[in-house]
Amino acid sequence: MKSKNPEATLLVSCPDCPGLVAALAQVLYSLGANILDSEQHVDPKAREFFQRIRFDQAEEAIADGRLRAEIKEVAERHSMRLRLVEGDRRKRVVIFVSKSDHCLYDLLLRWRSGEIACDVVGIVGNHRDLEPVADQFEVPFEHCPMTPETKAEVEAHELELLAELEADLVVLARYMQIVTEDFIERCPGALINIHHSFLPAFSGGNPYRQAYERGVKLIGATAHYVTADLDEGPIIEQDVVRSSHRDSVRDLARKGRDLERVVLARAVRAHLEDRVLTYGNKTVVFGS
Amino acid sequence: MKSKNPEATLLVSCPDCPGLVAALAQVLYSLGANILDSEQHVDPKAREFFQRIRFDQAEEAIADGRLRAEIKEVAERHSMRLRLVEGDRRKRVVIFVSKSDHCLYDLLLRWRSGEIACDVVGIVGNHRDLEPVADQFEVPFEHCPMTPETKAEVEAHELELLAELEADLVVLARYMQIVTEDFIERCPGALINIHHSFLPAFSGGNPYRQAYERGVKLIGATAHYVTADLDEGPIIEQDVVRSSHRDSVRDLARKGRDLERVVLARAVRAHLEDRVLTYGNKTVVFGS
Amino acid sequence: MKSKNPEATLLVSCPDCPGLVAALAQVLYSLGANILDSEQHVDPKAREFFQRIRFDQAEEAIADGRLRAEIKEVAERHSMRLRLVEGDRRKRVVIFVSKSDHCLYDLLLRWRSGEIACDVVGIVGNHRDLEPVADQFEVPFEHCPMTPETKAEVEAHELELLAELEADLVVLARYMQIVTEDFIERCPGALINIHHSFLPAFSGGNPYRQAYERGVKLIGATAHYVTADLDEGPIIEQDVVRSSHRDSVRDLARKGRDLERVVLARAVRAHLEDRVLTYGNKTVVFGS
Amino acid sequence: MKSKNPEATLLVSCPDCPGLVAALAQVLYSLGANILDSEQHVDPKAREFFQRIRFDQAEEAIADGRLRAEIKEVAERHSMRLRLVEGDRRKRVVIFVSKSDHCLYDLLLRWRSGEIACDVVGIVGNHRDLEPVADQFEVPFEHCPMTPETKAEVEAHELELLAELEADLVVLARYMQIVTEDFIERCPGALINIHHSFLPAFSGGNPYRQAYERGVKLIGATAHYVTADLDEGPIIEQDVVRSSHRDSVRDLARKGRDLERVVLARAVRAHLEDRVLTYGNKTVVFGS
Repeated sequence: MKSKNPEATLLVSCPDCPGLVAALAQVLYSLGANILDSEQHVDPKAREFFQRIRFDQAEEAIADGRLRAEIKEVAERHSMRLRLVEGDRRKRVVIFVSKSDHCLYDLLLRWRSGEIACDVVGIVGNHRDLEPVADQFEVPFEHCPMTPETKAEVEAHELELLAELEADLVVLARYMQIVTEDFIERCPGALINIHHSFLPAFSGGNPYRQAYERGVKLIGATAHYVTADLDEGPIIEQDVVRSSHRDSVRDLARKGRDLERVVLARAVRAHLEDRVLTYGNKTVVFGS
Repeated sequence: MKSKNPEATLLVSCPDCPGLVAALAQVLYSLGANILDSEQHVDPKAREFFQRIRFDQAEEAIADGRLRAEIKEVAERHSMRLRLVEGDRRKRVVIFVSKSDHCLYDLLLRWRSGEIACDVVGIVGNHRDLEPVADQFEVPFEHCPMTPETKAEVEAHELELLAELEADLVVLARYMQIVTEDFIERCPGALINIHHSFLPAFSGGNPYRQAYERGVKLIGATAHYVTADLDEGPIIEQDVVRSSHRDSVRDLARKGRDLERVVLARAVRAHLEDRVLTYGNKTVVFGS
Repeated sequence: MKSKNPEATLLVSCPDCPGLVAALAQVLYSLGANILDSEQHVDPKAREFFQRIRFDQAEEAIADGRLRAEIKEVAERHSMRLRLVEGDRRKRVVIFVSKSDHCLYDLLLRWRSGEIACDVVGIVGNHRDLEPVADQFEVPFEHCPMTPETKAEVEAHELELLAELEADLVVLARYMQIVTEDFIERCPGALINIHHSFLPAFSGGNPYRQAYERGVKLIGATAHYVTADLDEGPIIEQDVVRSSHRDSVRDLARKGRDLERVVLARAVRAHLEDRVLTYGNKTVVFGS
Repeated sequence: MKSKNPEATLLVSCPDCPGLVAALAQVLYSLGANILDSEQHVDPKAREFFQRIRFDQAEEAIADGRLRAEIKEVAERHSMRLRLVEGDRRKRVVIFVSKSDHCLYDLLLRWRSGEIACDVVGIVGNHRDLEPVADQFEVPFEHCPMTPETKAEVEAHELELLAELEADLVVLARYMQIVTEDFIERCPGALINIHHSFLPAFSGGNPYRQAYERGVKLIGATAHYVTADLDEGPIIEQDVVRSSHRDSVRDLARKGRDLERVVLARAVRAHLEDRVLTYGNKTVVFGS
């Protein structure tokens, strides 16, 4: 579906210097575009500039390539890294799961209700447990069981599948499987994971048990981009809920499931709306 | 104290139309100013545009009046309401109190530690209870006792005092006294109040008792600009804390005091940093 | 399924007087029961005593009726209202819905995963929209459309249905329909509603629009028992989430759905675990 | 000041077995005591039982020693560790500080307003910066500067001072100095520290900088008992506040100060009200 006057989003980051905001505003204005929303940030320590501009009324300039050309020219002048998302194209999402269904159901229901705008084009499971859920939402399910011996081979297959599906985003929705550095590097889209603790506390396995043993008074969940360093990738969103001595590990897991759902959904939404920029192992999340 | 390269802040609001962001960015850039931070918002229902721009390197253009002149020109073209805060001038704050000291102490300690940048130039109390606190922080205290009969006269005196003190902001820090419509209209600066409930719930008197009677599971506090309609002014900040059947009215008041302190401080800070714009009975709070 | 040593729960409330805790502890101990968990509360203003005792090892005393008899004797001595829940009987739940599916899905998924222990024995909808969801979870769906003219008749039919289904609890999961005083009185089980605001703020219709118009900085949800006074019943659980000027009514509704789910689920869970006692229009919620 | 009918508090912990609740309730009842409040907890994994009973009307039994004798008898039968706090004795608190005044002011203001019931009998500073605050609240200040060379000697002096002051509780209110294992062992009272992070994340030095570097979306504070393992002691209370890419280290410190204040105050209050029991490196905090 193409709307008459589609919105476009421009994300840029570069070393900070005077005139950046004016330069971009000027280009957009000269092409007849109307800025709907502009947020910008300077990290004073890293001396790095970040901006997100949402605009419309640029249909012609998009169609005849002028928009891309003129922005590219400004970008080169200022050594900007830029991402230009023209209009209506919905991102293609693949969800990796294991046996837990709460995050998968949550994403699929939000997707179906239109709360998160994307196309869920595939679900990959290392177990068959959630195939019926995939069926119910009419999303193709690929069973990719894995053993230490077959890991390299299976990951290669998954990468092929992601390429075929033209995935823009892979969501590890309680996938419970470590992905290799090689997979991360070659993954065609962004890779978001939900970790069931308030990182950097309780990284690694069994965070609810760790939280129980330590006797913390809050438990958390963290959605982050996946990098080669396990649980060390840029954090997109975190939240916590109160716990007490009354909570068993099982209670923490129950409370945690509610957190995991909302934290992952907020992160996926921010990513799909092109509101996230990364630098180092940190993120700028606009509109939050 | 004047710094070499002072920051300035521009706040504008006007009916939304294309080119607003570019117009302002262009003016600032042409005068050599460097935009440090720009946030903007459009209320799609009210079709109203809001922007806050913080910039530096405009010293010359400020000094010779060009900045103000050129911005005024743009403003008139677009029917903008604008506020231009040039550089280092600290706002002058007067705090109105009654007998409760927790909000007063909190503001004075934050002020003294430099956490909120302003000059606290006076404290007005309808009782003498907090005069020693004023003394301790070396802020002039004015005792303005009030009876229904003397209200008009005392308010007139207070308004004179505010004029003398050149107050930019009056903070009602648990003042426990209704100010008249006349006072509000003639008050030379902005007027912020802290109400000890999550408005619009439990407006009026004794909100902790009201909350107790209703059996709510959270209690709140609300900082708002004061308007003629009691407890109906534009809300700047709110927060809540969990309560339970175990909490007596006294417990709610205790928990509430912690809320009142932080909610009022956040609102005062946002106002002092020129991050708040009002429209109708609502606020846009940038940087939050 | 009967476990070997089932747990039982005793809930009592009565005018406060010395010796109540000891009296109940003594009875249970003398019958060989083992107290697993005991929580108690005195409302010092209402001079009312509340206690919840969970115990096991009372199988024999339950079987031969001694437990009930002896507790009844103590209860009469102290004018106690008491509820004794013997062991494994799962409460029978009927869910009333309209067109919104988020609360229904949430309850059904929690039920299926065993997170809330009950039997969902029926779903009643005034529209057919959610019949497929009922089918998918294999719960009988009853379509009960309603017009002002047919309301009395339809409610009578619903009451028959609830009696047939032996419902212990009716959950209004965004039912969007006011139930009559007559229905409430004759409803065989408890009646829990989710209201999409932080009550008492924004009672009545369209609370997200009301919140938007008022410009609040937090939005909330409230789960409460239904009484004849609309939105005035005893509150079981509430929570809030931060909002800002950036949020449209639609954004508030989206954020609110996440709240509604968890707030309703917590309330239903507390009720099913016999942790809630009501008095006046307030609740004691143990274990929270 | 002695009230006519003072309250007493009994705290017990022991290996779990049937009859514990009844045994204690029976003893108290037989001595004429009236249980005001009783909370109890079983850690099913550690098989450990914990109970806190608050009661009154035991004045005579306290006066003639029967209460202590009979409870001791029950305690021995069940290998209970017990703490019996008879009536009105206020705990004696010493606060250790360095240069930051926010936690000190907060505790002193709560103390003076009666919000936390104790006697603040001394303030120890390794710098003289906060001596004026001590003066203002008329609490004796002891300047105990410390170098690596003098640490042993100075700590010995501090221990003497604590003994002289008959301190029941030592609060490290942003003391910024590691206390030795020897000091901890010989400290006559309990020892509570506030750490400015959500432990176990960011233990050790400069937690706000660590949080900034990691790019977390929430920052926290943790109040805990001090043990030989730095930042590893039993956690009494934690809380968090939202942060974002906009926050500098300085902003995090500012937001954090608000957290530190309330988290430390809640922990101190829980301790002073005898609501905290420790086991292993965990706590049971009743009434929370």
